[in-house]
Amino acid sequence: MREINSAKNEHIKELKKLAKKKYRDETGTYLIEGWHLLEEAGDAVIEVLSTDPERATTLVTKEVLVSLSDLPSTPEVVAVVRKSKPEKPDFNFGRYIALDNVQDPGNVGTIVRNADAFGFRGVLIGAGTADIYSPKVMRSMQGSNFHLPIFTDVDLVELAKNHRVIATALDETARRPENFRIEENTIVVLGNEGQGVSPELLELAQDKLYIPMTGNAESLNVGVASGIIMYILRR
Amino acid sequence: MREINSAKNEHIKELKKLAKKKYRDETGTYLIEGWHLLEEAGDAVIEVLSTDPERATTLVTKEVLVSLSDLPSTPEVVAVVRKSKPEKPDFNFGRYIALDNVQDPGNVGTIVRNADAFGFRGVLIGAGTADIYSPKVMRSMQGSNFHLPIFTDVDLVELAKNHRVIATALDETARRPENFRIEENTIVVLGNEGQGVSPELLELAQDKLYIPMTGNAESLNVGVASGIIMYILRR
Repeated sequence: MREINSAKNEHIKELKKLAKKKYRDETGTYLIEGWHLLEEAGDAVIEVLSTDPERATTLVTKEVLVSLSDLPSTPEVVAVVRKSKPEKPDFNFGRYIALDNVQDPGNVGTIVRNADAFGFRGVLIGAGTADIYSPKVMRSMQGSNFHLPIFTDVDLVELAKNHRVIATALDETARRPENFRIEENTIVVLGNEGQGVSPELLELAQDKLYIPMTGNAESLNVGVASGIIMYILRR
Repeated sequence: MREINSAKNEHIKELKKLAKKKYRDETGTYLIEGWHLLEEAGDAVIEVLSTDPERATTLVTKEVLVSLSDLPSTPEVVAVVRKSKPEKPDFNFGRYIALDNVQDPGNVGTIVRNADAFGFRGVLIGAGTADIYSPKVMRSMQGSNFHLPIFTDVDLVELAKNHRVIATALDETARRPENFRIEENTIVVLGNEGQGVSPELLELAQDKLYIPMTGNAESLNVGVASGIIMYILRR
């Protein structure tokens, strides 16, 4: 077993770079924290850094673990994981959720977790959306990324030209989620926190959906909105 | 107009203490950031700290504004606001949401925002729940705290002995939100992120509610769960 006692070790310095998307893309790897996620990651785990000699593949100090985390607390374990590339989505069956420029990592993670909770078949990541391999998204997905496929770099405009797409809108003339008798092959698009779904996509969508609000709030958090929609449209 | 150019000024040092609950409780004041929240706060605003001489009551430098914020970016304005004490809740009419040991500030803020969006009459803050006047809760409420009353330090156990309370549960024998023909005078209790509603409260509740999940996720985020429940139980 390898042993590393310093956060200044060259290998640890390389791993720290995985905090940036550029390095995650270059290496095809990313970091996760905690035994729970490690278990979920299964065969995709390349290296286990821990202070526990019985479970580590690289035995490290607490200092090293802290240096690899973006949280102030010390993680019990940090693992290097290989990105998986899912098979192509089959839009002839099942429901998908698509993210158009959803920028907040917590929101992206919550949406993936909701898609997992309500039996959606996959998540499509469109332009401008937070990188799913970032530490914050990883944390808020709580392992759901290991339960359903997430397709990155999806051209949602191109997709909407060829498939049935429902866009969420703030337009009160759009249909409520309860009023959909949803087809199996539907893709629901969620939009940016401030601007919503892009005008080009809204234009191409076959249908529009909105969540009626009865109170005074100006809008819902997009993670919450996704939960309401997916709960009502679940199988 | 007062002018303060240094973050080391004694008055600014006093205001910085409002980051802590203890000082917010002692002074009965708290801080908010941004012109939007300032407008919502209305008459409750005591002091406006800004670099804009036309709108500030205390003209300050950017450095001072940064020192008062818990975010790395510079806020446009920071205001000192007086806490408001709402009238007693009237449980004979309307729906309330109650928080039992909900610890994450973002979740607490999201739940208040959802209660506002779906016409709930007020929010009851029980033991262990994040302080609603903390900067993180303020940010995620997005002004909804100025739209509906929030009752702090509520003894939920005492409440459940005297009123109709519905507790959320992970128990699949509980009723789904759709199956409630909800009475006007109902209080829905949401629980802790890890443990759920406390056993004592679950015992006292007149009814239990759960959100069925069809996929593989182990649980929902409590902010998302609150959105689904309040959307379905909205007036």
